[in-house]
Amino acid sequence: MVNVAAANREALDRLCRARPAWTGVGLAREALGLAGRTLLHAGPPISWQQMCWPMRGAVRAAIMFEGWARSAEDADALAAAGEVTFAPCHSRGAVGPMAGIISPGTPVLVVEDRVNGTSAFSFIADGPWGHQLRFGAHGPETLAGLAWIRDVAAPAFQTVLEREGPIDLASLMAQALAMGDELHMRNAAATGLLARRLAAPLVAAVASTKDLEAILRFVARDNDQFFLAWSMCAAKAATRSIEGLEGSTVVSAMARNGVLFGIRVAGTGDRWFIGSASVVEGLYFPGFRASDANRDTGDSAIMETYGLGGMAMAVSPAVHKIVGAKSFADALATTQEMAEICVGANPLFPIAPLGDQGTPTGIDIRKVVRTGIVPKINTAIAHASAPRMIGAGIATPPLEPFVDALVAFGERYPG
Amino acid sequence: MVNVAAANREALDRLCRARPAWTGVGLAREALGLAGRTLLHAGPPISWQQMCWPMRGAVRAAIMFEGWARSAEDADALAAAGEVTFAPCHSRGAVGPMAGIISPGTPVLVVEDRVNGTSAFSFIADGPWGHQLRFGAHGPETLAGLAWIRDVAAPAFQTVLEREGPIDLASLMAQALAMGDELHMRNAAATGLLARRLAAPLVAAVASTKDLEAILRFVARDNDQFFLAWSMCAAKAATRSIEGLEGSTVVSAMARNGVLFGIRVAGTGDRWFIGSASVVEGLYFPGFRASDANRDTGDSAIMETYGLGGMAMAVSPAVHKIVGAKSFADALATTQEMAEICVGANPLFPIAPLGDQGTPTGIDIRKVVRTGIVPKINTAIAHASAPRMIGAGIATPPLEPFVDALVAFGERYPG
Repeated sequence: MVNVAAANREALDRLCRARPAWTGVGLAREALGLAGRTLLHAGPPISWQQMCWPMRGAVRAAIMFEGWARSAEDADALAAAGEVTFAPCHSRGAVGPMAGIISPGTPVLVVEDRVNGTSAFSFIADGPWGHQLRFGAHGPETLAGLAWIRDVAAPAFQTVLEREGPIDLASLMAQALAMGDELHMRNAAATGLLARRLAAPLVAAVASTKDLEAILRFVARDNDQFFLAWSMCAAKAATRSIEGLEGSTVVSAMARNGVLFGIRVAGTGDRWFIGSASVVEGLYFPGFRASDANRDTGDSAIMETYGLGGMAMAVSPAVHKIVGAKSFADALATTQEMAEICVGANPLFPIAPLGDQGTPTGIDIRKVVRTGIVPKINTAIAHASAPRMIGAGIATPPLEPFVDALVAFGERYPG
Repeated sequence: MVNVAAANREALDRLCRARPAWTGVGLAREALGLAGRTLLHAGPPISWQQMCWPMRGAVRAAIMFEGWARSAEDADALAAAGEVTFAPCHSRGAVGPMAGIISPGTPVLVVEDRVNGTSAFSFIADGPWGHQLRFGAHGPETLAGLAWIRDVAAPAFQTVLEREGPIDLASLMAQALAMGDELHMRNAAATGLLARRLAAPLVAAVASTKDLEAILRFVARDNDQFFLAWSMCAAKAATRSIEGLEGSTVVSAMARNGVLFGIRVAGTGDRWFIGSASVVEGLYFPGFRASDANRDTGDSAIMETYGLGGMAMAVSPAVHKIVGAKSFADALATTQEMAEICVGANPLFPIAPLGDQGTPTGIDIRKVVRTGIVPKINTAIAHASAPRMIGAGIATPPLEPFVDALVAFGERYPG
């Protein structure tokens, strides 16, 4: 008979001892073994026909970036004809924010956790000029941004890592947490810490002054969420340590694709349990409202899977205002509620107002089903039919996938 | 008859509306009009004979840096012979951390508050190779560090400011506060924000790759307290707005020189009220203890004068561990106690765990005397006879200067 308690303690141990480090950059073709006309996407499996507008836009961008088609119309036709293979990022140990499209020629971060012997991947970021693929943009600026990252920024990062060695993301994230980042919707401190770490070494790594200035502007100036790709990669590397862990009821992945919300559970391997993606409750930028919003999307819920983001609301007074939490007390209460559905807490991420208790870690589907409390996911909100972010908020995923997973777990481990 | 309440409301208004910005760098000779063999020092007035070891060490460094003597012994002899004029930094609108020595050839920050029409100055920092003048170091590395700042870093900063315009320190500090900096003993977030602001523009401002790398290492890599000089300069610019404000019992400066602690009060102008510098209660680095420590020193108590540092303990879980506060609750209690001796709160610096109440601002000597509560000052601890920092803690200054100031205030404004 399976010892669920022991398996879940092991899951918690693995999550807590993970020490992800940024070890390299590469192209998805090599790093992920992406061959042929294959595109990875955020969330659980989905077909071209089912995809929401932002994901279709990102697919168009990726197809044109790869040269498989020369126009958005041709890209649509190619996808509709079944000429492109789609698979979740999670099926390759990768994660992608929002639409989360990764093509073979996409430059990706490589993050490794040597303690647990895992690795994970994410696309670096969108280019420095906005027009983000993750929100469905697919114009010439988006393609130029991707090419610039591939040809200029990514090689510079690789040179720095080769000279300086891996960058310890675990300690960087712990520091950032103490500076008010919950590392999902707020990565301002972490972005600053990464910029401080990279700035001087980049000088020696980049010959062209113009390129150097553009890279430093990209890393250091423009985007408080720059670090999110690193956060997600670190969280994926940590959570990969529990994938397939026999007898554990701990969630190993939560992800959305704008249509569907899915989870995977340690003890049931790579099987997805699926529900509808939720409507995000949030604060909208001026001029936008709920009826403009796409449903919840992106692999960034890996942050909550790892015990950060919405699980760690209490650390981040600044994020309360971004996602619309009512007050500091409300944020503390959210974290305390999340502790009710978790196996334990991660001492790497102490929460000062809660007496240095760690962030709630290891979502146990048994506790979710028993209490009816689902994980809160801090998230950006995409426009449903235009390539832009229109707000941020808190997604409350459906309970059904957790129930289905528990049923499947019972069938997998009878008695 | 003087309306103290109205004068103190005006003082609070000026402190709260201050928006200090970094507008330039220059040499103390021009920026402060320092002529001849004059050295500025931290704290209230003090003679060479009275000075503590760290301040004497810094004086030696400054004399050799200026070329007034070629050895530490000759520097001592020059100072002992009365050939050097000493004056407080505060007498020239400047502030200096720890020993706080500023010589005519010292490169200084220029910070201006255009709302109140004030400006303030501080030496930029010690050089990138340690051996800090502020702790009394006076060897060749210290002199080389000062020369490097003067000849390489300062001109680069000036070029960036000329091209980019002033850097708004008020909003940067407000952001850093939300990231756990109390901006006295913790400036990690502010240092990161400044580094992010400067990194890309420095590329265009510095021709030599070697210099650029060294400057970025100096700004971005080595020292979480790098921003302290900017914090102090901003606080001094803000508090200069109340210097000489008729009828106000609000403290306009608190400063220590390692022997004496002094305050100035708005309504009594530039007169100092003096007591003994206190022994700092703190946490020592391994191998050091209280008996190694110099008494409280430096102009950095301008941070508390402005409502930050010890007044803002509640914002900074990370600083609790640095200075030895017992717990998060203890830190909240400290800030709430400080509110008892202040005229009001600064909405520029909201404290999330206290319902976004601003940091306690405008220390009222009447309230200090009535309650017996003195401002808590977060501070570094200098070794008493070697050039190094040996810990950090909380200084509790003597009550007498506040009492003396209130007596003098009563004499100045009879009836």
